Amino acid sequence: MRQKLLSAGSKELSYEIREIVKKAKILQNEGVEIFWENIGDPIQKNAKIPDWIKAIVTELTQNEKTYGYCDSKGELATREFLANRNNALNGAQITPDDILFFNGLGDAIATLYHYLTPTTRVIGPSPAYSTHSSAEAAHANHHPLTYRLDPENHWYPDMVDLRNQVKYNPNIVAILLINPDNPTGMVYPKKILEEIVELAKEYDLFLISDEIYNKITYNGARAYALSEVIGDVPGIAMKGISKELPWPGSRCGWIECYNREADPEFNRLCRVLDDAKMIEVCSTTLPQMAIPKILGDPRYEQYRADLNEKIGWRSRFISQTLQQIPELTFNPTYGAFYNTIVFKEGTLNFEQTLPIENPEVETKVREWVDGVSLDFRFVYYLLGATGICVVPISSFCSDLRGFRVTLLEEDEELLKQTFTTLRDAIRTYLDS
Amino acid sequence: MRQKLLSAGSKELSYEIREIVKKAKILQNEGVEIFWENIGDPIQKNAKIPDWIKAIVTELTQNEKTYGYCDSKGELATREFLANRNNALNGAQITPDDILFFNGLGDAIATLYHYLTPTTRVIGPSPAYSTHSSAEAAHANHHPLTYRLDPENHWYPDMVDLRNQVKYNPNIVAILLINPDNPTGMVYPKKILEEIVELAKEYDLFLISDEIYNKITYNGARAYALSEVIGDVPGIAMKGISKELPWPGSRCGWIECYNREADPEFNRLCRVLDDAKMIEVCSTTLPQMAIPKILGDPRYEQYRADLNEKIGWRSRFISQTLQQIPELTFNPTYGAFYNTIVFKEGTLNFEQTLPIENPEVETKVREWVDGVSLDFRFVYYLLGATGICVVPISSFCSDLRGFRVTLLEEDEELLKQTFTTLRDAIRTYLDS
Amino acid sequence: MRQKLLSAGSKELSYEIREIVKKAKILQNEGVEIFWENIGDPIQKNAKIPDWIKAIVTELTQNEKTYGYCDSKGELATREFLANRNNALNGAQITPDDILFFNGLGDAIATLYHYLTPTTRVIGPSPAYSTHSSAEAAHANHHPLTYRLDPENHWYPDMVDLRNQVKYNPNIVAILLINPDNPTGMVYPKKILEEIVELAKEYDLFLISDEIYNKITYNGARAYALSEVIGDVPGIAMKGISKELPWPGSRCGWIECYNREADPEFNRLCRVLDDAKMIEVCSTTLPQMAIPKILGDPRYEQYRADLNEKIGWRSRFISQTLQQIPELTFNPTYGAFYNTIVFKEGTLNFEQTLPIENPEVETKVREWVDGVSLDFRFVYYLLGATGICVVPISSFCSDLRGFRVTLLEEDEELLKQTFTTLRDAIRTYLDS
Amino acid sequence: MRQKLLSAGSKELSYEIREIVKKAKILQNEGVEIFWENIGDPIQKNAKIPDWIKAIVTELTQNEKTYGYCDSKGELATREFLANRNNALNGAQITPDDILFFNGLGDAIATLYHYLTPTTRVIGPSPAYSTHSSAEAAHANHHPLTYRLDPENHWYPDMVDLRNQVKYNPNIVAILLINPDNPTGMVYPKKILEEIVELAKEYDLFLISDEIYNKITYNGARAYALSEVIGDVPGIAMKGISKELPWPGSRCGWIECYNREADPEFNRLCRVLDDAKMIEVCSTTLPQMAIPKILGDPRYEQYRADLNEKIGWRSRFISQTLQQIPELTFNPTYGAFYNTIVFKEGTLNFEQTLPIENPEVETKVREWVDGVSLDFRFVYYLLGATGICVVPISSFCSDLRGFRVTLLEEDEELLKQTFTTLRDAIRTYLDS
Repeated sequence: MRQKLLSAGSKELSYEIREIVKKAKILQNEGVEIFWENIGDPIQKNAKIPDWIKAIVTELTQNEKTYGYCDSKGELATREFLANRNNALNGAQITPDDILFFNGLGDAIATLYHYLTPTTRVIGPSPAYSTHSSAEAAHANHHPLTYRLDPENHWYPDMVDLRNQVKYNPNIVAILLINPDNPTGMVYPKKILEEIVELAKEYDLFLISDEIYNKITYNGARAYALSEVIGDVPGIAMKGISKELPWPGSRCGWIECYNREADPEFNRLCRVLDDAKMIEVCSTTLPQMAIPKILGDPRYEQYRADLNEKIGWRSRFISQTLQQIPELTFNPTYGAFYNTIVFKEGTLNFEQTLPIENPEVETKVREWVDGVSLDFRFVYYLLGATGICVVPISSFCSDLRGFRVTLLEEDEELLKQTFTTLRDAIRTYLDS
Repeated sequence: MRQKLLSAGSKELSYEIREIVKKAKILQNEGVEIFWENIGDPIQKNAKIPDWIKAIVTELTQNEKTYGYCDSKGELATREFLANRNNALNGAQITPDDILFFNGLGDAIATLYHYLTPTTRVIGPSPAYSTHSSAEAAHANHHPLTYRLDPENHWYPDMVDLRNQVKYNPNIVAILLINPDNPTGMVYPKKILEEIVELAKEYDLFLISDEIYNKITYNGARAYALSEVIGDVPGIAMKGISKELPWPGSRCGWIECYNREADPEFNRLCRVLDDAKMIEVCSTTLPQMAIPKILGDPRYEQYRADLNEKIGWRSRFISQTLQQIPELTFNPTYGAFYNTIVFKEGTLNFEQTLPIENPEVETKVREWVDGVSLDFRFVYYLLGATGICVVPISSFCSDLRGFRVTLLEEDEELLKQTFTTLRDAIRTYLDS
Repeated sequence: MRQKLLSAGSKELSYEIREIVKKAKILQNEGVEIFWENIGDPIQKNAKIPDWIKAIVTELTQNEKTYGYCDSKGELATREFLANRNNALNGAQITPDDILFFNGLGDAIATLYHYLTPTTRVIGPSPAYSTHSSAEAAHANHHPLTYRLDPENHWYPDMVDLRNQVKYNPNIVAILLINPDNPTGMVYPKKILEEIVELAKEYDLFLISDEIYNKITYNGARAYALSEVIGDVPGIAMKGISKELPWPGSRCGWIECYNREADPEFNRLCRVLDDAKMIEVCSTTLPQMAIPKILGDPRYEQYRADLNEKIGWRSRFISQTLQQIPELTFNPTYGAFYNTIVFKEGTLNFEQTLPIENPEVETKVREWVDGVSLDFRFVYYLLGATGICVVPISSFCSDLRGFRVTLLEEDEELLKQTFTTLRDAIRTYLDS
Repeated sequence: MRQKLLSAGSKELSYEIREIVKKAKILQNEGVEIFWENIGDPIQKNAKIPDWIKAIVTELTQNEKTYGYCDSKGELATREFLANRNNALNGAQITPDDILFFNGLGDAIATLYHYLTPTTRVIGPSPAYSTHSSAEAAHANHHPLTYRLDPENHWYPDMVDLRNQVKYNPNIVAILLINPDNPTGMVYPKKILEEIVELAKEYDLFLISDEIYNKITYNGARAYALSEVIGDVPGIAMKGISKELPWPGSRCGWIECYNREADPEFNRLCRVLDDAKMIEVCSTTLPQMAIPKILGDPRYEQYRADLNEKIGWRSRFISQTLQQIPELTFNPTYGAFYNTIVFKEGTLNFEQTLPIENPEVETKVREWVDGVSLDFRFVYYLLGATGICVVPISSFCSDLRGFRVTLLEEDEELLKQTFTTLRDAIRTYLDS
């Protein structure tokens, strides 16, 4: 090429949680049966879309309008429906103009960070979800900035750490929440949300709340929306139907901008996001048209409650199974459909192994564990020995050592068997 | 806010072709019937999706798999289908790994320019299509760089101008083609494509070919794909189903990377695009699954031929109607579904008007034309006097004065009436 | 202009301490006699260059060699002399190649920050000396980053504040010391220097120590050179003859790079500084050739000791005079030739004034104090009422309210009179 | 280091013309006598400073004021003297405020490019003088942009090339002239200067004219100052005493800004340069004070005329000697004190050598020529065989193959011998 092509930030794009998938596929080719406890797609874990929802979608596909462009900000009727839904929470009030549709939250995230000037930073939680942390790092040409979620305190944010980072790093312009959180399953308590809002107000920041799992809570928890606690601080909530409906393949998410008028620079940012979408014409039409029909259907609430109850049951089963192991720091979960389990410091070492019968698989695993961190070592042995595929925490910008599992397996017996096997494998590994 | 938020490039985002829509809606509220000759969405212009296509889509919506994530690069079977389709042209050969799906070409365009380092530039045609020119300008923090399409020479690119810009501006790393072209309806002759490939080779550039209208040609023309002429030069073709099927609401497009191995820096760029999509998980699943079923269906080719024939008829009707006016530089079109018509220099002035009966409408138009360029003046008078909504060329990064019309009106009588009215209005305006 | 010309950082260049000079010159034109207690040029305050030094310089000006270029890094014999002088401290050892001459430290500072990539930051003390803080801010396109010097603790750095900023702001790559400090007259205790070295080591930073006042200490203090405490941490000391000889008009300073080999990136930075100077050919020759002759002369040490004794006497006189005012936070000084005196919180208000006889001067001062901060208000009244020109602390990136005086007045009686007048004016102002 | 330290542009700093010095010093250590025809320092080539000039300087060094800071823009009386000198040319008129002193032109150049925003470019001549081309490239993070000086046309600028680059590269905001030129000895004809001014006006650029050699012309030529031809176009002339007096070791140069008020953005740039100098306090005092005394002395004009006559004689001798070789493109010189001599295309090859008696020197030269360009090959052989040290043209951002010599040798016999030897060596090399 005539010139170097790539921006400095492009090397920050990494999605290490996909690395384990490549390894699992290699073992699959060697004949190992893989149990995919790594991916957050309910559909792949055998979730069924109820017939009444399919019927709504199918009817829409008969209508030419669902094939055409929609309004560049998103279908107006849908934005009205969603504005009303938010306003009914009696927090920050919005109009349809404060809503902007994207092709999934990945699109919203990439676009938002793209148009922030490179020296500004958004601080987010660690363990970190790569879609946020990589996009933010790529925009800034630097590693992600994170605040610590504390596994010794229900994975709640370490507020001292967060406050200090905000105070001492003037480049921070926003705080990101993922609530409920991926990958920890933690739901931010209202009091902590209020403290974060206060902090933003004190340092003149805006807030970003990824609420993709907002309706996915259980075991008695409920997730507060940003708009319920934000008061007059500027903020952006990110919402979508990928996880909730679930319809991840639709690439349909949206942002809600709160208190745009409270700060002219924030308002300009919101307008730039509108402009950025306008030059792409619009986002996906069909799922936008489906939203009021599905989410507004009288059957919807019970349907979601049933799904949550099932996730809650799985969460409790996993708690009972894994809490027995004293070497683990284990937190019960209350939202989303992941749990992140930490090995206590000093419990892992570079000698531990699991027996693997197939010698070719064993050879591969031995090669892979050479030079990797302690959690990758465990995860590769687990994969080779049991076929259970989980994600090492160090993939999530974290110094902790552990792994993430999902709470999505629809087949109850398979779930029990998988997690019992996992428990026994951990025991064997630690004792080896 | 604690710091300035917006990147320098964000102010380059503009989609002026939407400006006219706002004006038209204002007049619509005043009771003016609007004829939307401004927007390239066949669905809005009453195109019907054939039942056999709807049936394919509807069947897919019964399948859970269409609700889930697909492969982050795009459904493998679909990429295989498309790689084969390209390879059958006997030009540059690709594998499914050289294909990457996006949420429409707007997404592909935004992502590509985003990861180019800001000092590199991509030069594209003028009149320019805003989705490309705004995104490229935003990445570079500077106005778009363009080469001239020459209305006196069939809108073919001015190759002297293009060569000189490439030669004398070392920041240019790529040349963009839109073939067939929006907004001119020009189809690049094979010889010119070959010259552009030669130029890219001489200066070590890569090529970008937006081929969204590749199958939409008529009046005897055929559009050559980039892969047919590119030889061993690195390049990216941008393709999609928005215009061709048409299914613009699907937000489903893809890029094909040719000769990745020919240049390590180009190859790195392609890999960064893969990474950027991976952190968004994947693109829209349903339309990807539909592609091989629809495009591979035996009925498809005839269906597209019929549509092209209709566009060709409209193109010829418009030619006959508007070529009568000697003050216009008029070029017959051969591809896509737009025509850009230029007023010869000196034929427009700031005194010309059209009679508008409704006095409130007239007042508005008089206000709007204050201080605008000569083509905006004409367009606003046309809108007020006839309800015909067209786009001024100066919205397309062009110094020419004229307007773009679409060739999409399905209702033959309405089309005839609209363009006859347009012709008479031009005559009256020029003579006023 | 065809394009916007100025870099974003250029607006960070400010040297507010010159603002007061403009005001003083206006009053001078009105007939007010000005006592320039604002500027750190001993020559302007009537320091005499001893004849033996003048004789050395004069002899050199007979020699053609002093008119020619010297080595681009600086005269080799001089660098050998200086390397030996440093090495005799028995700290970090250097060779002549580790020394690079500049046209004064302003040149060294501008060049150093210029070649740091914009997202890296160097944190320095507040109150801040503008030459450092503006140049660093201009490189970063953001306001200066500072750590607090604490007037309640001898102006020593607030180590908790410094540690937190370093810990929580990953963009910080270096810590700046000015030792002895301008504008506080503080000399960093060895223990604090060692703590700062430890901090740099812990966070993989380098150190910058501006040692222009290194030989100017008194009242029993001695300033430790960076090389004495740095151990194996990379660092740059900035030295020169402007203040020490004093020969500020020579524009002759140099940097010494310690432990270049300890870190490859730091070593690259040092090499880039060499390259940057090489493209300017070299720095001023005459003063470089004078350095070994003057600083190596047996008379030099006593000469400097005598000067220090005189500054010490002035420092003590000012202490005795101003410590009587309970509303001031006053710290005796130990190095350099400034003192920064702080009004305790709540002691200043927007009603206080000083009587000014000349009505035209009074009118001007009244205009100037409109809308300024409390320390500017005091300083303008002081100037109008007494002709004493001091610098408000808020000009030094500080939130404190106070002023800087110099300790340079050679005329003992004039000094006594000036500071007695200053004391009385403060008393009157506070009581008004 | 905690982060990458260096700016992207820092790698553009190169001063290849120093490379040959290192090689020559190695051979000097092997016992080869070196004839330094590479460096533009008259002092090193035995120029004598006349006693009356030394007397002025020596008297000044008795005066304390020459040791102190001067005004941050430069000594006022000196700026008045220089403003008058410029204004007497009856071109663009200036006041002392339009003059800003720097520590030599290297400082002026570094500062000017530093504060231009990185995407703007200044185009300068090729062969290029590294101080300009490296500093400009470093600011832009890209290779230098150059227009061709044509050795087939008296080294005059190729105006077609220059015009095209300006026209087709919108990032160009200024054109640089070095007049008289280093390294070609060309003096820009008035007509060409006027064309360049026209070009700047047409494209809204400013001009930069490095006039360090303005008074050094001979053989009937005279150099027009920028102010004589600039009309109302904004521009900056760079002047100094390094070459003219000569006093290169003084690091004393200044810029004159013409037509600041003609363009607000240009005016802002000039103000930023003032600010940048202000934070460095000021430039060298002694030479500034000497300027009116020396340049205003009645003896000065004749002194300079005599020096020019001597350079002219050398220029003619070298012409007579080297023009005899038909393989050279040789241009007589008219200004500055360099000549750049080009080997005609096809006359050099990778087999040519010169006999070198000392076997160790021969071995070194053989090693050095491995893989270098054809002009470096010639230069290394010349150095090894004759001790004559000249600079290869490819060090000056040029694709030509040749070398630069200086016209500074004060010893007439030595000059004759050196250039006769050079002629013979070229003949032998070409015939080998």
